[in-house]
Amino acid sequence: MRANLMDDIIIKRDHGGNVSEISRIYGIDEDRIIDFSAGINPLGYPPGLRNAIIKDFDSVLNYPDIDSFDLVSGLSEYHGIDRDCILMGNGSTEFMYRIPMVFKPEKALIVTPAFSEYEKGLRLAGTKVSYFQTDEKEDFFIDIAGLCKRLEEGFDIVYFCNPANPTGVLTSKDELCRVIACADKTGALVVIDEAFIDFVEEESVKKEILRFSNLIVLRSMTKFFGIPGLRLGYILAVPSCIAKIRENKPPWTVNSLVQGAAVKALFDKDYIRETRQYISAEKEFLKNALNKIHGLRAFESAANYLLVFMESRIGLNSTELRNRLMPEGILIRDCSTFHGMEDRYFRVAVKKHEQNMILVEKLKKMVKQGRFYTICKFN
Amino acid sequence: MRANLMDDIIIKRDHGGNVSEISRIYGIDEDRIIDFSAGINPLGYPPGLRNAIIKDFDSVLNYPDIDSFDLVSGLSEYHGIDRDCILMGNGSTEFMYRIPMVFKPEKALIVTPAFSEYEKGLRLAGTKVSYFQTDEKEDFFIDIAGLCKRLEEGFDIVYFCNPANPTGVLTSKDELCRVIACADKTGALVVIDEAFIDFVEEESVKKEILRFSNLIVLRSMTKFFGIPGLRLGYILAVPSCIAKIRENKPPWTVNSLVQGAAVKALFDKDYIRETRQYISAEKEFLKNALNKIHGLRAFESAANYLLVFMESRIGLNSTELRNRLMPEGILIRDCSTFHGMEDRYFRVAVKKHEQNMILVEKLKKMVKQGRFYTICKFN
Repeated sequence: MRANLMDDIIIKRDHGGNVSEISRIYGIDEDRIIDFSAGINPLGYPPGLRNAIIKDFDSVLNYPDIDSFDLVSGLSEYHGIDRDCILMGNGSTEFMYRIPMVFKPEKALIVTPAFSEYEKGLRLAGTKVSYFQTDEKEDFFIDIAGLCKRLEEGFDIVYFCNPANPTGVLTSKDELCRVIACADKTGALVVIDEAFIDFVEEESVKKEILRFSNLIVLRSMTKFFGIPGLRLGYILAVPSCIAKIRENKPPWTVNSLVQGAAVKALFDKDYIRETRQYISAEKEFLKNALNKIHGLRAFESAANYLLVFMESRIGLNSTELRNRLMPEGILIRDCSTFHGMEDRYFRVAVKKHEQNMILVEKLKKMVKQGRFYTICKFN
Repeated sequence: MRANLMDDIIIKRDHGGNVSEISRIYGIDEDRIIDFSAGINPLGYPPGLRNAIIKDFDSVLNYPDIDSFDLVSGLSEYHGIDRDCILMGNGSTEFMYRIPMVFKPEKALIVTPAFSEYEKGLRLAGTKVSYFQTDEKEDFFIDIAGLCKRLEEGFDIVYFCNPANPTGVLTSKDELCRVIACADKTGALVVIDEAFIDFVEEESVKKEILRFSNLIVLRSMTKFFGIPGLRLGYILAVPSCIAKIRENKPPWTVNSLVQGAAVKALFDKDYIRETRQYISAEKEFLKNALNKIHGLRAFESAANYLLVFMESRIGLNSTELRNRLMPEGILIRDCSTFHGMEDRYFRVAVKKHEQNMILVEKLKKMVKQGRFYTICKFN
């Protein structure tokens, strides 16, 4: 009963990754929970990160460097982008709240389904939010010509996640440049969220900030580098845009420990290569295994997660499936809380091989049970 | 020359504590800089904190607990205040930006001199800012009756720091309650910043949130507990107010590492007692030593810093003094950037005894040199 009551509370959450909350509610040790609900690197943080933080621990005694000088220098080298085009924040989420406050757009367009924080940040700034809904019949691929046409309605700002979350759909750099150019003509700022682009870095529009002054690229360092608990994101944009946002943000949002350690992570080429290889292989394995379960269909994905469609014959919706997996310490992301998504989709992160196997087995069992319930219901 | 050019940049900073920046500019190792510009516990963080963080390090692999459940529980016990009256943030600064965004006040009154971030957060939300200036002739004591009268002009929000920063002036709980009651009548929200109240906890208005629904108390955990680099603050208010702010803030602003470790710090009674005793004794020593330097006058202070007035016969203003101490690795807080303060005030934190001695010696030397320059100028 207690768990059921709590489910209602959790259902209201628009996010995955609530490991400590689930641990408290179900009395499961955090170590025993496998979190497929958040797209975090299954290899963990880079091997040198822990020691780097311990070594540099006394940096906590001072205020963090407001300018995150070392981090910005590292990212400047890593991306080949000038220092004054980079601004660090408390995860990219900080900027989802900050950008609308600074630019005060009247009308926003969000390419959906999408991360709920875009809309929350916009609404808080008093912005009117509209959606450009991608079509599940088209496997959620984005109709670029349609989007460009829609922009003619006169939006002040457009949000676009690439690869898309939760669908994993990748839009090519060339197509995105068409969108940015269209927006430039209609006077719209374009925010491209590249939280999961690290797996397909060559498709990043980061260098396009030199061409388009209406482009802001959101980047995360917590997902690929396995440090969501440390909170680290940044934006890339023309210097005038960066300066305007910097002047209007709280000064010390990036803690001292992550400032020192994250620079080293950036240049750990072995870790970066291994992560890409591991995710690529395991994603293929997991996708195939999920597709072998009758009634489930996993989509192609350019990110480190897979969107899965559940046919109605399974006899469970995505919220029910999530709620049944939860007490067993398996967290998946019910996608019914994404704008415009039915309760027939869930998202799973690609984890370690043995964890992915556990997920597949549990899903097989649940789906069979669900189907059994459906048969009982109809008899 | 390089240093002079850089000085111009630093002068624009409204904050102390820029240790890494000064280290870069002057080529001085961070370890060799003594930072009197930020009011941080000179005893450092509690002895168990480092090991607690190292032990709990793998918490960085998950998103931070959105609700900071353990921290809120700890603070609830520590203060004797219900859990739903507490909300954690990325330092109390997060709330200086968040509160105006959520409540969208039209007119604000700030009791000055005060921390510059109040005004920055308010202006970003489009709030018109007025000041209630305390009088240096009255040693910056706050004219409570005058403030209550001023509130009749009809402000939507009032900011008040207690003990005041940078003056160190303490307003008693009873007097503050008069202000809150006046504001309640005129329909104003009152934000009391208690960033430095830990040294005089008995004067905190924290329990008054039960009586006044127009009260928000800002608290910091970075100063007393010596962890400014980890970013941790919170607010205390009635549950409806807390809920409104929670719904309108980014979800993961408090990192995982500080969430686990800070709870333990709260219950380290020995550390808390030793800190209060040490600061009390050293503050007395430093105040007396500064007052013995001709031309300087240190004010009484209820916090862990001292405001110092420089007579004109010294021949230096506060910016010049700061700039001359900087290359020697001594940082003081030039108060000329505080609204309504002349360039004859600086603020110094109470540090370790040997560090305080170094400051006194350096100041003696500088003041003597300054006086020498003045004599030369007039001859």
